[in-house]
Amino acid sequence: MMTFDEIAAFLKDESVNNFIILTHKSPDGDTLGSGFALCRVLKSMGKKVKVLGSDGFPDRYSFLYDGYSEDSWQDTEPHKVIAVDIADTMLMGKNLEYYTHPGTVDLCIDHHVSNKMYAKQTYVDAKASATGLVLFELFGFMEIDIDKQTAVCLYTAIATDTGCFKYENTTPRAHIAAAALMEKGVDYTRINRLMFDIKSRRRIEVEQAALAHLDQAVGGRVTLICVTKELLETSGADEAEISGLSAVPLTVEGTDVGITIRYKDDDRYKLSVRTTDKADASAICKEFGGGGHIRAAGCEICAPLDEVKRMITESAQKHLS
Amino acid sequence: MMTFDEIAAFLKDESVNNFIILTHKSPDGDTLGSGFALCRVLKSMGKKVKVLGSDGFPDRYSFLYDGYSEDSWQDTEPHKVIAVDIADTMLMGKNLEYYTHPGTVDLCIDHHVSNKMYAKQTYVDAKASATGLVLFELFGFMEIDIDKQTAVCLYTAIATDTGCFKYENTTPRAHIAAAALMEKGVDYTRINRLMFDIKSRRRIEVEQAALAHLDQAVGGRVTLICVTKELLETSGADEAEISGLSAVPLTVEGTDVGITIRYKDDDRYKLSVRTTDKADASAICKEFGGGGHIRAAGCEICAPLDEVKRMITESAQKHLS
Repeated sequence: MMTFDEIAAFLKDESVNNFIILTHKSPDGDTLGSGFALCRVLKSMGKKVKVLGSDGFPDRYSFLYDGYSEDSWQDTEPHKVIAVDIADTMLMGKNLEYYTHPGTVDLCIDHHVSNKMYAKQTYVDAKASATGLVLFELFGFMEIDIDKQTAVCLYTAIATDTGCFKYENTTPRAHIAAAALMEKGVDYTRINRLMFDIKSRRRIEVEQAALAHLDQAVGGRVTLICVTKELLETSGADEAEISGLSAVPLTVEGTDVGITIRYKDDDRYKLSVRTTDKADASAICKEFGGGGHIRAAGCEICAPLDEVKRMITESAQKHLS
Repeated sequence: MMTFDEIAAFLKDESVNNFIILTHKSPDGDTLGSGFALCRVLKSMGKKVKVLGSDGFPDRYSFLYDGYSEDSWQDTEPHKVIAVDIADTMLMGKNLEYYTHPGTVDLCIDHHVSNKMYAKQTYVDAKASATGLVLFELFGFMEIDIDKQTAVCLYTAIATDTGCFKYENTTPRAHIAAAALMEKGVDYTRINRLMFDIKSRRRIEVEQAALAHLDQAVGGRVTLICVTKELLETSGADEAEISGLSAVPLTVEGTDVGITIRYKDDDRYKLSVRTTDKADASAICKEFGGGGHIRAAGCEICAPLDEVKRMITESAQKHLS
């Protein structure tokens, strides 16, 4: 593991003028906020920077890369590669496949305990709520006076990964960073509305339809919703709109296990399981060869829908404390 | 306006052993969190305390008054009355009517700019996100080492009034307080789930039904939902469940004016208007004799439903920038 001193030396190294920053596929606020914050700080140090992402950068996050332009340099010039918020080369995506090869990434800055240590050098702080929080503290250590737009990037990184300071991974450090970043004039009202409140009409319609198929079992402690074949075919909802539904069943009062069942093909269903501290989602999914985290896990079951419901409910009941 | 020094002297006064704390009607996390936090601190100073609220204390907030028991004293003993988070005697409610009389409230601690200064002495900090934040800072000033349960009360007060650090009224001070309160061992994951994520099944059904009547105008910038007579009669939803719907229309992508129309009686509708920074909700409602705040206001219109929709949409369009 590197130290902040060593990262600072790496970034300041006068023999290197060019940096490539890698962000993960299906980009979120943390990888993009971290990537563009680091980009701005490097540029302010006179470096040339390219920020890369396999899936491009979604419009939804355009306020993070407002004013960004990719620098260029001669192929003969040396450059260094930094991955931000990428725990595993598998998360780089198709268009960044080159960087999955050993020795291509010089430095990885991350907060996932599951980091695969694929880079030449790695800084992982698994107790940090977000990679953006690691960078905030690094820039403070380096005595860099960050500007408003960099603060926007870091605030968004921390806010999105903590569900606006709501989730278990929120820490006093995250709140203290938010306080300091807000002092830079971040328009947090607009950012929070954009990140947490707004839903597309299509997303609302899909949620409506899925909630219409709400089932409850075990005295209401297990709540299931279904994304049926018909709904997938008629709604025109995209992947993000569908996967966003996974959080819905656990919001129903009294629920300890929230299950979202999604049609894949005939008699094959993909299940997403979310739990409170009363059950282990990963144990529930392991019964069907799946896995994940203690509060969020997934699996697939090949069976008719009614049978799928019965099987997952049985497993949920077994693992409920 | 009092100073923290004067409030400290008021609370510590050795000639007064008994305190009544008033909370506002339709109690929320701030008035209850503030009330019970102050109660605990006064009790730790050896005082006897009663916390009063016109509507009692809802089950939803039971974690705030866990272990609380009302003290009693002889009628002949003197006592002092403190109102927390009550901007106006009108907000005290029926069962606290006695305290609406001048001279009955000794001290009011509040954060509403609209405070009517009805108490003998008042401390209002309109820049504080919550009354709980004022108390957190007061206790810090008094060098009181608050315990975990008091921290639970103050965290909840601040988190609920800021929509979990999401709304415009969130400040660096609020984040710094949250950081310090979390250090006391507050189970913020459970509190935040309870306060922000969970919805009753009935609330979900009402929201579903209201969203089924979603209308959009002015290119999607105005979004309307309706709580119809039929919905009110069949859903069995309570006041809180219905009024919670007011936030829904503004969550639809592209919306700058979100309007919730609620049936009152034949050809009489109550309207709730929420806006982004692109329109003044209070100006929109003023056209119909209503009023409120710049981002949230209300009015009543007596007309058939279609006419009500046309009139409010016209006013919204006029005031959209």
